[in-house]
Amino acid sequence: MSSQIAIDVMGGDHGPEVTVRAAARFLSRHASASVLLVGDQATIERELAAQGGQGGVDLDRVEIVHAEQVVTMDESPAIALRTKKRSSMRLAIDLVKAGRAQAAVSAGNTGALMATAKFVLKTLPGIERPAICTALPNESGHTHVLDLGANVDCDAEHLFQFAVMGSVLAEAFDETASPRVGLLNVGAEAIKGNDTVKSAAERLQAGPVNYIGFVEGDDIYKGGVDVVVCDGFVGNVALKSSEGVAKMISHFLRQEFKRGVLSRIAALMAMPVLNRLKKRVDPGRYNGASLLGLQGIVIKSHGGANVDAFGNALDVALREIEKDVPRRIDQRLETLLQERADA
Amino acid sequence: MSSQIAIDVMGGDHGPEVTVRAAARFLSRHASASVLLVGDQATIERELAAQGGQGGVDLDRVEIVHAEQVVTMDESPAIALRTKKRSSMRLAIDLVKAGRAQAAVSAGNTGALMATAKFVLKTLPGIERPAICTALPNESGHTHVLDLGANVDCDAEHLFQFAVMGSVLAEAFDETASPRVGLLNVGAEAIKGNDTVKSAAERLQAGPVNYIGFVEGDDIYKGGVDVVVCDGFVGNVALKSSEGVAKMISHFLRQEFKRGVLSRIAALMAMPVLNRLKKRVDPGRYNGASLLGLQGIVIKSHGGANVDAFGNALDVALREIEKDVPRRIDQRLETLLQERADA
Repeated sequence: MSSQIAIDVMGGDHGPEVTVRAAARFLSRHASASVLLVGDQATIERELAAQGGQGGVDLDRVEIVHAEQVVTMDESPAIALRTKKRSSMRLAIDLVKAGRAQAAVSAGNTGALMATAKFVLKTLPGIERPAICTALPNESGHTHVLDLGANVDCDAEHLFQFAVMGSVLAEAFDETASPRVGLLNVGAEAIKGNDTVKSAAERLQAGPVNYIGFVEGDDIYKGGVDVVVCDGFVGNVALKSSEGVAKMISHFLRQEFKRGVLSRIAALMAMPVLNRLKKRVDPGRYNGASLLGLQGIVIKSHGGANVDAFGNALDVALREIEKDVPRRIDQRLETLLQERADA
Repeated sequence: MSSQIAIDVMGGDHGPEVTVRAAARFLSRHASASVLLVGDQATIERELAAQGGQGGVDLDRVEIVHAEQVVTMDESPAIALRTKKRSSMRLAIDLVKAGRAQAAVSAGNTGALMATAKFVLKTLPGIERPAICTALPNESGHTHVLDLGANVDCDAEHLFQFAVMGSVLAEAFDETASPRVGLLNVGAEAIKGNDTVKSAAERLQAGPVNYIGFVEGDDIYKGGVDVVVCDGFVGNVALKSSEGVAKMISHFLRQEFKRGVLSRIAALMAMPVLNRLKKRVDPGRYNGASLLGLQGIVIKSHGGANVDAFGNALDVALREIEKDVPRRIDQRLETLLQERADA
């Protein structure tokens, strides 16, 4: 089966200039994939023509789906849902619902994307709330972290469901049999934390994932845990704080390398090293967050993604299609619900 | 008035070897300060004697207070409180209560320190829960962040009180008239976040601090806000995640600088730059968290602090004494309580 991805080309800070170019490169990387470019037809045609010079785009694998509307970055999810039924975001998700695409990818407004995806595709049976999951670099590979902001209030059952979904995603992506799942807390000891994480821990101890206990913020980056589970408030703050520190270090490093002639020479010498470092921690390499728990695949790209970063989000979508992640989650949940009914 | 600090010399991963040495250096930095070294008398005397070679310690400004017990790092706060009444941690805080010391400093068990401090010193009138506050580096200076882990569940009133305390601390430390106070949230827009932060925002908008609105995790490190307020769960995760990222970047940097001869030469060239960078982001430079909201000054040092880092915690204690931080918080609260009573 060929994989077809619906791309909301209008979303994100840069729009079609980035998304159409990323789509063209994606097609040249993956010979059997095809794309539905959803957005303003004239703009898309112009961007596609602009790609012609560099070997061109295989237009047999491109279809344009015209959309009159665009969801803006600051629009409230409820208003987007009600008034933007002809938007590129909505149509991309509609194409997944209709079975014409196996995944939708958007760099648009996260809240609107989640609300639309939930409304159009519905959640899987047994899932109360979808979660946003992304991989972050760690010292020996990467860690899947969820929820990253879809749910600012979570109870223990939500965290339990996130753990199951994250575990299935890690299994599928990393091809590991039994990913280590940790609950994010303020200490590793069982007495630490609030009632919600304690209650979630109890459920997970009895549960269907390889639960290794409480982990702390720094464990995300150490490499001893494959899936880190938290509510969306905590996950979002952890992610943004991490980005902030990395940016500050990079800022200081640039400042220090400009301080005096010797430092400038050192900077030149160190450039290849710093570029390799940058590549290893580049958020663009990890771009493409999965909206897990839906009856379909929806991938959120960072709004500020460049061509390479948006391409990564498209690659994530393709991998989820190939690994059939929603069906795997559904099967795991069905088993769980059956076990609960039997108990 | 001379400032006298009670030091729990037994606390932390390294104990008297670090704490006594840091105390000796602290005395040579501050001619009018004096210390009460609380812990095992024989060990303290041995460590003091070991400092003799390097110009010696001004023993006129040192008093040893023998303590038979030590609170261990993994002890539960409740058990420490009940069974460790002769511990170095407890006696140090008792000395503050008795007015013999103006501040207590400990690198011991955070939970036990907070529980003991709260039990012995009591909170200020109007404060329901003390909070842990520390300064973190940002691109143009530092940001005060609280709570960092004392309170895993907070309501809007707690966050409001943290904001008032953090604002007073920043005013006193940074000598700024009107520190900018932000509430940590998952987005800057007013519709973002959970009910607790929204309700806290309402109180702060009407309130007695320079409230600038919601801030996100990366704002801690950007430099546009002086005080960032959050519950202890979120604050702890933000802090630990930040530490984790910084360590991972440092790990990758070492790896990359070892890759090949050219990289090794670049590493030698870049060493002074990297050392300056390290100094700027060194957590030791920011060591010394304030337990705010108590009727007395208690400073928590990181357990793994070295001599310089523990010395920073002592400096923080001295600054709080000189600036009379608890009294300032008390006065601000009194005004607030009066206004509420009048309203």
